[in-house]
Amino acid sequence: MNTCVDLNCDMGESYGSHVIGADADVAPHITSANLGCGFHGGDPHVMTRSVELCKAHGVAVGAHPGLPDLVGFGRRRMNVTPAQVREMVLYQAGAMSAIAKAGGVSLQHIKPHGALYMMALEDDAISDAIVEAIAGFDDRLMIFTTGGTATSRAAGRRGLRVAREFFADRPLSADGWVMFGSKLTDIAPDIAGLARRAVRVAAERKTTLTNGIESPFIADTICVHSDTQGSGAIVRAIREAMRKAGVDVRSFQPVVTQ
Amino acid sequence: MNTCVDLNCDMGESYGSHVIGADADVAPHITSANLGCGFHGGDPHVMTRSVELCKAHGVAVGAHPGLPDLVGFGRRRMNVTPAQVREMVLYQAGAMSAIAKAGGVSLQHIKPHGALYMMALEDDAISDAIVEAIAGFDDRLMIFTTGGTATSRAAGRRGLRVAREFFADRPLSADGWVMFGSKLTDIAPDIAGLARRAVRVAAERKTTLTNGIESPFIADTICVHSDTQGSGAIVRAIREAMRKAGVDVRSFQPVVTQ
Amino acid sequence: MNTCVDLNCDMGESYGSHVIGADADVAPHITSANLGCGFHGGDPHVMTRSVELCKAHGVAVGAHPGLPDLVGFGRRRMNVTPAQVREMVLYQAGAMSAIAKAGGVSLQHIKPHGALYMMALEDDAISDAIVEAIAGFDDRLMIFTTGGTATSRAAGRRGLRVAREFFADRPLSADGWVMFGSKLTDIAPDIAGLARRAVRVAAERKTTLTNGIESPFIADTICVHSDTQGSGAIVRAIREAMRKAGVDVRSFQPVVTQ
Amino acid sequence: MNTCVDLNCDMGESYGSHVIGADADVAPHITSANLGCGFHGGDPHVMTRSVELCKAHGVAVGAHPGLPDLVGFGRRRMNVTPAQVREMVLYQAGAMSAIAKAGGVSLQHIKPHGALYMMALEDDAISDAIVEAIAGFDDRLMIFTTGGTATSRAAGRRGLRVAREFFADRPLSADGWVMFGSKLTDIAPDIAGLARRAVRVAAERKTTLTNGIESPFIADTICVHSDTQGSGAIVRAIREAMRKAGVDVRSFQPVVTQ
Repeated sequence: MNTCVDLNCDMGESYGSHVIGADADVAPHITSANLGCGFHGGDPHVMTRSVELCKAHGVAVGAHPGLPDLVGFGRRRMNVTPAQVREMVLYQAGAMSAIAKAGGVSLQHIKPHGALYMMALEDDAISDAIVEAIAGFDDRLMIFTTGGTATSRAAGRRGLRVAREFFADRPLSADGWVMFGSKLTDIAPDIAGLARRAVRVAAERKTTLTNGIESPFIADTICVHSDTQGSGAIVRAIREAMRKAGVDVRSFQPVVTQ
Repeated sequence: MNTCVDLNCDMGESYGSHVIGADADVAPHITSANLGCGFHGGDPHVMTRSVELCKAHGVAVGAHPGLPDLVGFGRRRMNVTPAQVREMVLYQAGAMSAIAKAGGVSLQHIKPHGALYMMALEDDAISDAIVEAIAGFDDRLMIFTTGGTATSRAAGRRGLRVAREFFADRPLSADGWVMFGSKLTDIAPDIAGLARRAVRVAAERKTTLTNGIESPFIADTICVHSDTQGSGAIVRAIREAMRKAGVDVRSFQPVVTQ
Repeated sequence: MNTCVDLNCDMGESYGSHVIGADADVAPHITSANLGCGFHGGDPHVMTRSVELCKAHGVAVGAHPGLPDLVGFGRRRMNVTPAQVREMVLYQAGAMSAIAKAGGVSLQHIKPHGALYMMALEDDAISDAIVEAIAGFDDRLMIFTTGGTATSRAAGRRGLRVAREFFADRPLSADGWVMFGSKLTDIAPDIAGLARRAVRVAAERKTTLTNGIESPFIADTICVHSDTQGSGAIVRAIREAMRKAGVDVRSFQPVVTQ
Repeated sequence: MNTCVDLNCDMGESYGSHVIGADADVAPHITSANLGCGFHGGDPHVMTRSVELCKAHGVAVGAHPGLPDLVGFGRRRMNVTPAQVREMVLYQAGAMSAIAKAGGVSLQHIKPHGALYMMALEDDAISDAIVEAIAGFDDRLMIFTTGGTATSRAAGRRGLRVAREFFADRPLSADGWVMFGSKLTDIAPDIAGLARRAVRVAAERKTTLTNGIESPFIADTICVHSDTQGSGAIVRAIREAMRKAGVDVRSFQPVVTQ
């Protein structure tokens, strides 16, 4: 039985006066945060406040670099070269790291955002570029991605630690692929069901695909998006369900709260 | 007599396919470079190539953070708060530092760009914000600014090392203030004259103001802008004139060439 | 007695997935809308949807051009030249006009946004630049601004029609100047009070300044910001209070609903 | 024999202080210009100056809308929806039109830029979106594209006038497709050869593909890019060669020079 899992959230993606996500609702209940770094969301002030929010709640901080597409929220695929990917990940990781450091926090991990994450899953060159950026910056950082993908393999080749993740609020297709087009909260806004699904992955290492088939699935960390409707209630429910199931929820790096 | 001076250049400010400055002409002759960090110029790819260019020529690398005003090239004053300044300097310094580190180079200094530089000269709160950002990120970094200003005083209070600079390609007003509205190359495109003026500051520690008065001026570093017309010829002439005058031109931190 | 007034709202300022304002709550109760044009908020898709929303509710459409400062929401003063102002207003007005036209709607007016609005109030050259942009594009367009200001005078000189506005959700200082730093909804979240204050301006042509003095104030249009907390309830209350007071609330140009 | 052809140029794509293209060299020799509209290049000031430049040389003005990718110069494919394409073309066409109108010029045409142009060539939905944007804005505008493509067919369905173009500075692949990866000026910087090739298409309606095969090719307009090396010399040579060959070079809409 899996007695330990991390609970991560894509957040810190507001931009100036423009808001996305329910970060304040989510922060008290998660253990790791993937914070926007300015390209798809998250300006320097939002990044600063997000680090403070994480620090206040003992949440481990990660950088969440995305494609340079603010208006498309980094969710549109772009024909970028591996070199461009390497450079944009370095840039964003460095910016996030500096703001975290000034806030008294060190980065735990990097998690690519949106279309960059999805493109990397199937693309060795893009994945190598991301991994090279991370390792070239600081090889003690972890990468968050889906297990059994080009990204996790690239990390393995380079000796970078990987946290394999499961998306609590997104369905898994028949071929075991996360489906970003549809949201589980749209299909079935059943928060208790989402929590049971998350616990099952953590405790039993299996889940049910969209075709009804049961499949093994290993996850070191469970993801919920801050901009998923009801994200605060979802992470609260997951946390409570994990507690009842005896699964310890914690980040990978020890976190010192304020 | 001043036997040693640094020669710095604002450069690495192109953006994607859009070009500004004659960086390749300038790089072989300078000792420190202030590289754009994405807000007024310098995207991740330009930053990467600029670090490589500096490394190839043994030029010490500095970050050149600016206001978030690409279309105005960071040269328009904006009503930003000290907190916003602190956050934007941290963001840009971190991004530059990561790209430099991945390129095998460590940052020597930070020099604020354009309107941010000018605003800071007379504003204690803005200067404190810049200094706090630098020191909070890495207190071994130097700051490049004009001596005897709010910025140099703020650095002094915080114990940050300052390189006091003289602008070779900009006139000094009667009150000893650098005049960015006009360019010496427009007034007098006399390259030999510019070089003599630079040597005089370095060797004799004095210069002539726009009103004809002679004034003492202490400079640890001489600045030429890459986008000043004829910048390559100017730095070459300065370098040659310094050699003849017996002034050693070198950066503050030892640089290892490729 | 003033039997007729327009009720306008700054809205359509979301950007991609990033949200600001409660546009859907406000739209059914207002008569004119000032829609963001991309520089401080409002991307092409948001603009398209905002035009549709206005059309569905019979709301007259105006362009709301701002400074090129998305992260600062166009609320930070920038040192822009009158020529730059003219060009940025033309650009944004043209973009909004095209999207409105394709949506079957023609523009009623232009209202400068945020810091651009405030800078223009006291600056003849900036105001002339705005007015010249509007008149050079389409001299049948109105301009929304505060009466008795540099902007209204510039419009008068050029023969451009002016709608003088009163900010329902912002206090008026002792010198009759709108105070954007503080919000009336923060000071006194008294929606009924705000509605009475709006009716008083419309029906009695007077209001109370922050120093308690009563002052005459002529308004052709009343403004509420979509991002003011409770904006939907505020415009609903104003509308109802106007009805009771016998003040007709309507836009300046006849609007055909779908 | 073809006695008449237009000579167009992608230009007006500089951005603030950042320069691309040799617009001043090109403008005296062309008859139509496709001006950047802010998304991949061309800010409001550059647009204003470009309209003035065109007016001074009797060059017909067109809008050149691109993908929202300044750092990639609109040359990277993005996964945009047809609705997003329609909206971004409307936005940019409207902005350009307003600036042109204020400058005393009316738009002649729209030509999609870079990756948007290329994506549209093979994609009916993208092409329909572009055509719908143009026709919804002003159905007297022409569209510039390659003949025999999804774009020219979409224009035909909607009754929009098409100018079929030939790229003087880009090779044509064996399947008759313009090759943007490589530039003819790189392969063979033979300006006289480029001019002969352009004349041949105009006068004989045929050209030679990269595999050496001769192919018929009908062009109403010949394109040269302002950022192609030697663009000024190329358009001058084309103009001279056309004159010698008795081909009249002129735009589609009568242009009044200053």
